[in-house]
Amino acid sequence: MRPLERSEALRLLGSVSLGRVVFTRYALPAVRPVNHVLDGEDILVRVHDGGALAALAAPAGTPGVVVAYEADEIDPVTHLGWSVVVTGYARSVDDADDLVPAPVEHLPVPWVGLDAPHLVRIRPDLVTGFLLEGDADA
Amino acid sequence: MRPLERSEALRLLGSVSLGRVVFTRYALPAVRPVNHVLDGEDILVRVHDGGALAALAAPAGTPGVVVAYEADEIDPVTHLGWSVVVTGYARSVDDADDLVPAPVEHLPVPWVGLDAPHLVRIRPDLVTGFLLEGDADA
Repeated sequence: MRPLERSEALRLLGSVSLGRVVFTRYALPAVRPVNHVLDGEDILVRVHDGGALAALAAPAGTPGVVVAYEADEIDPVTHLGWSVVVTGYARSVDDADDLVPAPVEHLPVPWVGLDAPHLVRIRPDLVTGFLLEGDADA
Repeated sequence: MRPLERSEALRLLGSVSLGRVVFTRYALPAVRPVNHVLDGEDILVRVHDGGALAALAAPAGTPGVVVAYEADEIDPVTHLGWSVVVTGYARSVDDADDLVPAPVEHLPVPWVGLDAPHLVRIRPDLVTGFLLEGDADA
């Protein structure tokens, strides 16, 4: 198991579109799968209106709420692959004061059958990750 | 998006070996990928010695710490699939007073290159999940 550098971890995170946002809801640990794109080092995720993720939608202009964001690609048989965990502040993207520079076609696609107009931006503070590399004895 | 019944959600969870355990560490949301097996409705996960997951290893005989556990299979292109989130108490499995009925060959396999002798048992309290089903307009 090899720890990943920040840049390498963020590059891997950007190579996939699915991750899990981790937050606190009603004082309990909570987690939801979402899709994402990177905007520089920031992570943009779609948030479904009225769902549990509303807890993440801190108003733009506020520091936001602390969340973790995880993505991985781990082979279920060999257990080789990688995992990246980002910890940082999440807040709503408000078009008025927080323009999204990523082209619209690069924004996360709303999931099937869901109306998901809200974007949440996660600014990575702590970035950790590891690579599970091959081992002849595995 | 269709909500899953508890039994259906646990069946899907048991159909995969990889999930993510969500907990609180140093007052921050934390998440780690682990592998698991089900023992009845309980989730057994391997915990690496000395790692962040030590926060999960509440002594056997104590109520444990509240965690969430998530697994999913979501197609990165179509976004179809499922996700299951379990919330419950986690505590160490102590062979002396908490025999593991699952045959040894069904226990989660330690990851490559890691010494992972500790098992943690998560008793599911709240079980939620959803199915992202096909949509011709997707």
